Amino acid sequence: MKSRAAVAFSPGQSLEIVEIDVADPKAKEVMVKILYTSVCHTDAFTLSGDDPEGVFPVVLGHEGAGVVVKVGDEVTSVKVGDHVIPLYTPECGECEFCLSGKTNLCSAVRETQGKGLMPDGTTRFSYNGEPIYHYMGTSTFSEYTVVNEINLVKIDEAAPLDKVGLLGCGVTTGLGAVKNTAAVEEDAVTAVFGLGAIGLAVIQGLKKANAKRIIAIDMNPDKWELAKKMGATDFVNPADYNRPIQEVLVEMTNGGVDYSFECIGNVEVMRSALEACHKGWGESIIIGVAGAGKEIHTRPFQLVTGRVWKGSAFGGVKGRTQLPGMVEDFMQGEIDLDSFITHHLNFSQINQSLDLLHRGESIRTMLTYGE
Amino acid sequence: MKSRAAVAFSPGQSLEIVEIDVADPKAKEVMVKILYTSVCHTDAFTLSGDDPEGVFPVVLGHEGAGVVVKVGDEVTSVKVGDHVIPLYTPECGECEFCLSGKTNLCSAVRETQGKGLMPDGTTRFSYNGEPIYHYMGTSTFSEYTVVNEINLVKIDEAAPLDKVGLLGCGVTTGLGAVKNTAAVEEDAVTAVFGLGAIGLAVIQGLKKANAKRIIAIDMNPDKWELAKKMGATDFVNPADYNRPIQEVLVEMTNGGVDYSFECIGNVEVMRSALEACHKGWGESIIIGVAGAGKEIHTRPFQLVTGRVWKGSAFGGVKGRTQLPGMVEDFMQGEIDLDSFITHHLNFSQINQSLDLLHRGESIRTMLTYGE
Repeated sequence: MKSRAAVAFSPGQSLEIVEIDVADPKAKEVMVKILYTSVCHTDAFTLSGDDPEGVFPVVLGHEGAGVVVKVGDEVTSVKVGDHVIPLYTPECGECEFCLSGKTNLCSAVRETQGKGLMPDGTTRFSYNGEPIYHYMGTSTFSEYTVVNEINLVKIDEAAPLDKVGLLGCGVTTGLGAVKNTAAVEEDAVTAVFGLGAIGLAVIQGLKKANAKRIIAIDMNPDKWELAKKMGATDFVNPADYNRPIQEVLVEMTNGGVDYSFECIGNVEVMRSALEACHKGWGESIIIGVAGAGKEIHTRPFQLVTGRVWKGSAFGGVKGRTQLPGMVEDFMQGEIDLDSFITHHLNFSQINQSLDLLHRGESIRTMLTYGE
Repeated sequence: MKSRAAVAFSPGQSLEIVEIDVADPKAKEVMVKILYTSVCHTDAFTLSGDDPEGVFPVVLGHEGAGVVVKVGDEVTSVKVGDHVIPLYTPECGECEFCLSGKTNLCSAVRETQGKGLMPDGTTRFSYNGEPIYHYMGTSTFSEYTVVNEINLVKIDEAAPLDKVGLLGCGVTTGLGAVKNTAAVEEDAVTAVFGLGAIGLAVIQGLKKANAKRIIAIDMNPDKWELAKKMGATDFVNPADYNRPIQEVLVEMTNGGVDYSFECIGNVEVMRSALEACHKGWGESIIIGVAGAGKEIHTRPFQLVTGRVWKGSAFGGVKGRTQLPGMVEDFMQGEIDLDSFITHHLNFSQINQSLDLLHRGESIRTMLTYGE
């Protein structure tokens, strides 16, 4: 099968739109026609070459939605024509992790997925006869992609794919971090560092959780308007202060916040987020992905005096079990996805979408493979 | 009132046994005749001069038991003759922290206690007319000491003070960290770093919690016997391996431990303890007190993939509310205190007790003020 794809041939270069070959799905694999995709900072991070696990050439992309066009042997949970969202966090339902009841981090295909391969150790993508790697088990930057059945969730056909595709990463991550990882309670005092899609989704989640105070923190004041729309109550720009921002927040909140969320991937901000927490009970959740080799650090006294340091991947959400419910929540108007989509472009303009993201001008650009 | 006391006149020196003056308790204060005290690593740490908050000259000591001899005005919860344990973590029952239901870290006298003063900003100790500082709100290295009423818990008169004094710090800290901070569940796989009094108490707590596996880690193999007696199932000596001990533990446990406890105060061990935890759900609890300026560090990926980093102070135990019940547990044979007491000496031999602790030869030396 021929397919349009935006291939990252080497780190630090623009994506190249070419026609690649996509092989048929093998057993327990599914071919999906992606109708919409968006670009997330993680794609940009891997493209930059800073991701130590990045392999090239590769088809990036992990936030999208489409329709099943072919199924391999032994596939039972989806059929041709089903509307689906690819999941970079799979859910096999059988591994130690899935059965633990404590995490969404399924281990079934971890090893090969991390290497950009399908479970049999090969790729379904090729260009001029040379293999091209998969990415995060999803590779939504190809019009036709092949994913494992366990990396796919079937959703309500009535849901608009150009919107619910956002549930494939950022929005779900933010909402889930509030609900599953932090389990924020009513009237909590909270802080959100970084007002990209994830930070905004965290704010939306905090509003749903009836947090009393939602302090939005970003160096870019242009982000405030949307943060406020999502439910933020205060805006703090670290550039306005000549002292550590955690001190400012502790003062503002008379002791610190109950919950903080780092949605950037900067280890110094992760420290600020922890230290902005209230002594005795404040919890800080790391969501952002830091650069290779970067380390978080703080004085252990911060933890001994009751602060808790956690992290969240895909918001602790089990994709196949929980995403259909989130799609329904969106359909009922309980999740706002529209506000995240600041731009619409054709898939052929994907590099422009990356530029918008880098310049902080977009939250999400919805790319369509169609006209 | 004249009192025998072991005074730390300056950092890095031996304690000096002298006769000091102890003023009467003011309002909401109580004078206690200490009958038994033991020495904890925290006393040794402050004595060394490494504690940035250490002030001199000072009467150290925070693990002991005695009898009320005088009460100041407005004292309602204890009377002369009551058997008591001094609490370095007070419980006022009225501050934001006490009322939160989330922490045992009472803030009522935090500021003055940290400076070695009583709440009115003065000290009750003096020597040759010069003030001597208090320590941790307890100062059990003086036969007569003055503490705030909220730093004191009344206990069952039938309890042997030469044993339950240990509940004033180490044993309670270890048992509480397991029960309150980690809330370890049955069949958990666990690791305990450092086999001093706190580590051994953690092991005892894990056994009570029916942990399936309790891996004891220490550089000193002589500690294994007592650890095993307390309930440890495995012993690991990091000196036997030429690779990071967290790798050894992850391998031994087929993925990592469910809970780990750092009971040393070494920031590199704190990292090992975290990284020895199982992906997806492992929790690491810092109990040890690190040196001034020391920082913990790790890759944020450790947290993003589901590990949780916490700390525990006095085991999360609210002293005035919960210590009487722990004394009863000891009386019922449910807590073993005897095994911690490896040596008995007279209070006059307190420097010898410090030497035993430094050389790793004792767990606790019970010092008696009597004959």
